[in-house]
Amino acid sequence: MQPDRLAHLKQDFSQGFIAYCGYEAVHAAEGIFHSRLTLRADHRQQDGFVHAGVLATMADHTAGYAAFTTVGPDERILTIEFKINFLKPAVGQALACRAQVIQRGRTLIVSEAEVYAVRDDQEKRVAKATFTMIPVAAARLQPQ
Amino acid sequence: MQPDRLAHLKQDFSQGFIAYCGYEAVHAAEGIFHSRLTLRADHRQQDGFVHAGVLATMADHTAGYAAFTTVGPDERILTIEFKINFLKPAVGQALACRAQVIQRGRTLIVSEAEVYAVRDDQEKRVAKATFTMIPVAAARLQPQ
Amino acid sequence: MQPDRLAHLKQDFSQGFIAYCGYEAVHAAEGIFHSRLTLRADHRQQDGFVHAGVLATMADHTAGYAAFTTVGPDERILTIEFKINFLKPAVGQALACRAQVIQRGRTLIVSEAEVYAVRDDQEKRVAKATFTMIPVAAARLQPQ
Amino acid sequence: MQPDRLAHLKQDFSQGFIAYCGYEAVHAAEGIFHSRLTLRADHRQQDGFVHAGVLATMADHTAGYAAFTTVGPDERILTIEFKINFLKPAVGQALACRAQVIQRGRTLIVSEAEVYAVRDDQEKRVAKATFTMIPVAAARLQPQ
Repeated sequence: MQPDRLAHLKQDFSQGFIAYCGYEAVHAAEGIFHSRLTLRADHRQQDGFVHAGVLATMADHTAGYAAFTTVGPDERILTIEFKINFLKPAVGQALACRAQVIQRGRTLIVSEAEVYAVRDDQEKRVAKATFTMIPVAAARLQPQ
Repeated sequence: MQPDRLAHLKQDFSQGFIAYCGYEAVHAAEGIFHSRLTLRADHRQQDGFVHAGVLATMADHTAGYAAFTTVGPDERILTIEFKINFLKPAVGQALACRAQVIQRGRTLIVSEAEVYAVRDDQEKRVAKATFTMIPVAAARLQPQ
Repeated sequence: MQPDRLAHLKQDFSQGFIAYCGYEAVHAAEGIFHSRLTLRADHRQQDGFVHAGVLATMADHTAGYAAFTTVGPDERILTIEFKINFLKPAVGQALACRAQVIQRGRTLIVSEAEVYAVRDDQEKRVAKATFTMIPVAAARLQPQ
Repeated sequence: MQPDRLAHLKQDFSQGFIAYCGYEAVHAAEGIFHSRLTLRADHRQQDGFVHAGVLATMADHTAGYAAFTTVGPDERILTIEFKINFLKPAVGQALACRAQVIQRGRTLIVSEAEVYAVRDDQEKRVAKATFTMIPVAAARLQPQ
């Protein structure tokens, strides 16, 4: 993979909902993507923990960009389905997410993501997820 | 379930991340919860579709409040894990979510949620998810 | 769908592992398949309940044949992934499984299956599963 | 964990459905379990591949015994739910499965399993699964 393609994907990472929530790209390599989120009150649920949706969104988007590193510039990635386990309630100053492609098939890509709560520079794994994704020609995507 | 408890849950629904994203409660009954989201550009991903994380968050939170209707006021609901299938790319003016508890066990609650994209008053089912949740005594939850 | 195609699928259902375990087709219609298993000691786990693998296999195979009813005779169905929740420990004289296709997309098929334990003619739902499946041209499948 | 407890679990592994299918324990350590299956025609599906149910059963049972190594002798393990991705069609002379506990919580245990097809002494990973399990006091289990 070209370094400028990886740089492009890192820049491309934060748009729309992702930019709105504050997720940022940290690292990209072939089949790998890392991201980070500085936590705010806006990310919490009713009991003060980070909302499961914040963790799931981060895992999904980071795993999607890990998949992006394995396709050409004319292809997009759609999530077919995912499954996420919440291992511990998440509290801290930030979240870190590390995703990797575990299977690059002819039609489908399977990737995994782990999310860590960062508290006083200590990381705790708080969620783990598995994703099935599909590369689609950009020309075929027309949201309207 | 007392009507005032259901009214309380509907009011309680939109806090923190959920309020930030704009999700709103629509209907609550024993084991059932419905919600709605008016779509904005902030909810989209890089190709213009609603972000998978927006759908997943809505499904999770609505399923969680469906579970809430089956426990007492001193209990909270945590999501253990969920699995979501994205059936179609989501476009439209709004999302509607309908969740229900399908199993109320001694220790765990299993619920389901469907998310619909609403476009010109027509609904299309765009995601379906299954959740395993656990009721926890409020006193045991201390995010700090 | 032609009646003889449905009859063929019902006959085709019990082969290899499925015949070995004793699962039988009961009903087939467009997007729908039902099956049954008469329980024996061989289907139990160490505590006397029906083994989770017996339930998962039944759900997978029945959901796969529900998907089969939506493709042509030259196509086969492969399971990409599934998720199953075990709602209650299963005991009884038989299992009944009912599966249906919930989304027939261009590339993928999503189906669901519910498994019931039958005890003294009463059914209890003991498992529910969601499947992502892919139709593949028979000519492309070469297990050897 | 006592060596004799691990030896007991290895011996305990093959009962009922597991013995009927031919799965065998290979290795047990704290939070870890490995198993093996010599493949026969009885394990295949209609296209000649190993049936998804054979892979899922092996993953579930091996992950369950990995969880068993983390509880006392008076506790049993029940599978709450699992999710499995089938990464490649499985062919070969045997299957190998390696499972490990990734989270040992107060109430629940999360474990993972990978299944490999063994062909001419070469292993290919064909499935990966995630499990949520619950330890239950043996005295509370009465399948009847």
